[in-house]
Amino acid sequence: MSDAATLIEPDDTLADGVAFIDGRYMPVAEATVPLMDWGLNRSDLTYDVVAVWEGAFFRLEDHLDRFFRGIGELRMTSPHDRAETAEILHQCVARAGLREAYVKVILTRGIPVGSNRDPRALQNRFYAFAIPYVWVFSPEHQARGVHLKIGATPRISPQAVDPTVKNFHWGDFTRGLFEAYEDGADSVILTDGAGNITEGPGFNIFCAVDGRLITPAEGVLLGITRKAVIELAEGLNVKVEVGALPVETLRRADEIFLSTTAGGVMPVSHLDGKPLGDGTPGPLSMRLRQLYWEAHADPRYATPVRY
Amino acid sequence: MSDAATLIEPDDTLADGVAFIDGRYMPVAEATVPLMDWGLNRSDLTYDVVAVWEGAFFRLEDHLDRFFRGIGELRMTSPHDRAETAEILHQCVARAGLREAYVKVILTRGIPVGSNRDPRALQNRFYAFAIPYVWVFSPEHQARGVHLKIGATPRISPQAVDPTVKNFHWGDFTRGLFEAYEDGADSVILTDGAGNITEGPGFNIFCAVDGRLITPAEGVLLGITRKAVIELAEGLNVKVEVGALPVETLRRADEIFLSTTAGGVMPVSHLDGKPLGDGTPGPLSMRLRQLYWEAHADPRYATPVRY
Repeated sequence: MSDAATLIEPDDTLADGVAFIDGRYMPVAEATVPLMDWGLNRSDLTYDVVAVWEGAFFRLEDHLDRFFRGIGELRMTSPHDRAETAEILHQCVARAGLREAYVKVILTRGIPVGSNRDPRALQNRFYAFAIPYVWVFSPEHQARGVHLKIGATPRISPQAVDPTVKNFHWGDFTRGLFEAYEDGADSVILTDGAGNITEGPGFNIFCAVDGRLITPAEGVLLGITRKAVIELAEGLNVKVEVGALPVETLRRADEIFLSTTAGGVMPVSHLDGKPLGDGTPGPLSMRLRQLYWEAHADPRYATPVRY
Repeated sequence: MSDAATLIEPDDTLADGVAFIDGRYMPVAEATVPLMDWGLNRSDLTYDVVAVWEGAFFRLEDHLDRFFRGIGELRMTSPHDRAETAEILHQCVARAGLREAYVKVILTRGIPVGSNRDPRALQNRFYAFAIPYVWVFSPEHQARGVHLKIGATPRISPQAVDPTVKNFHWGDFTRGLFEAYEDGADSVILTDGAGNITEGPGFNIFCAVDGRLITPAEGVLLGITRKAVIELAEGLNVKVEVGALPVETLRRADEIFLSTTAGGVMPVSHLDGKPLGDGTPGPLSMRLRQLYWEAHADPRYATPVRY
């Protein structure tokens, strides 16, 4: 770490979040990206989000694995190696003094020089920040269950943009969200355009049907909360099928829930305006939600923040 | 315009470009976007690029039409109306003192507050800048002709993300560019995954075959250079078919050229490593290229910059 890393000290005024850019820590409200960065101008970047809960990162190594795999797939090089990256994330959280945090790390292609359009010529740029934990749906919202709509807009195909390399190509999700809001739903799940469910804006999906859980295999982010749920379900001797999830199967599911780092296991209570079962979160969803949060204290998954 | 609009005066140190952000003009090297802006974090934005050539905007009204249509499609609202936007673009160019410029305007969704994920709740943000004219391929490169590859990566489908709303979902293009470079080509053209040509990174495509020009109708940006070329070809009594362009038709084309604001009409000399004809730019491509640049002086299309 550079000397600049000591520019700020833990401080209550940093409680809105701390970012790390160009070797310097700063309040997140001051954190900016050059207007010319292809991270903005071509969405040419990868990123990851890891949660801090009760003072510890959850499955930090899984997130770092995924981030660095994505960097390789995009043929980028981070100025910070894995150990430095982990240290920067610790510092962002610690300097903000956050016990529960949403911690994001982004690597962009960088800033072009003149007319040169060759992405190989650019110096890749690193950004990180920690802010108070973000809930895609609040705990209260989760307790009543999410109202989900199956969007008419299809997901960007995995042939065009690899969804396993975490990316910000969210135009389809944004369009789907507007569809959902128009129908009074809370969020949207997109299909592959051929009758199979994929994923939603920031989350994977699971459904309980015919005595097992199904989550889509293709066309989705390999979510780390998804991975955690699969492991927890197996611990309950619940069979998990990672495969195709046709729309009609989802429609006859007993339970549906969503999984994300920014909210955990989020039960769905209504699909396309119709209640699932009695219209409240199902028992398996609630059990997995409880186990998910309990796992945050498991030393196999918890990396205590060095405050 | 606010008083802040007078913060800088035309100045040789601004020759690298001038940006306008939050009511203030600044050297482009100082121009930044908040790290939290969903323009970055969801690629939730639209933009446009207009050229200035010999001191005049080319087809400025067409670009403003497209930009404001895109804003409406994305259900955003610009803080600057059409007249103000035109004035800001004039100011960016004039303050930079550029006679030939690449002028970009971006409207992003903006910065979320807390956990609220509803895009309707955000205040949209406006960015503009003028930099020296950008050539996707230089005039010298155009004179020898572009070496183009048909990419294996398909274009994001128009059902998932509407390509007529100018956007930065370029993951497919970036992947295609790497494919092209590996084969020693200069750039890439993507298909729709079903055997039809769409567009490339920042350009439309035309080919001359069977005595007419063909340019794809679907799955592409409605480029303003494309529009200009269609009008110019019609002026030459060359029939232009706006329709499907199968890969096999492109392969047997007599000529191919690319069209973009950042480079104009750019002849292709090689496709997938094989020369087109004698491997030099074709006569119709060169004629249209000449007419395209001549049209920049046409008062129907030229809006002189108020320096």
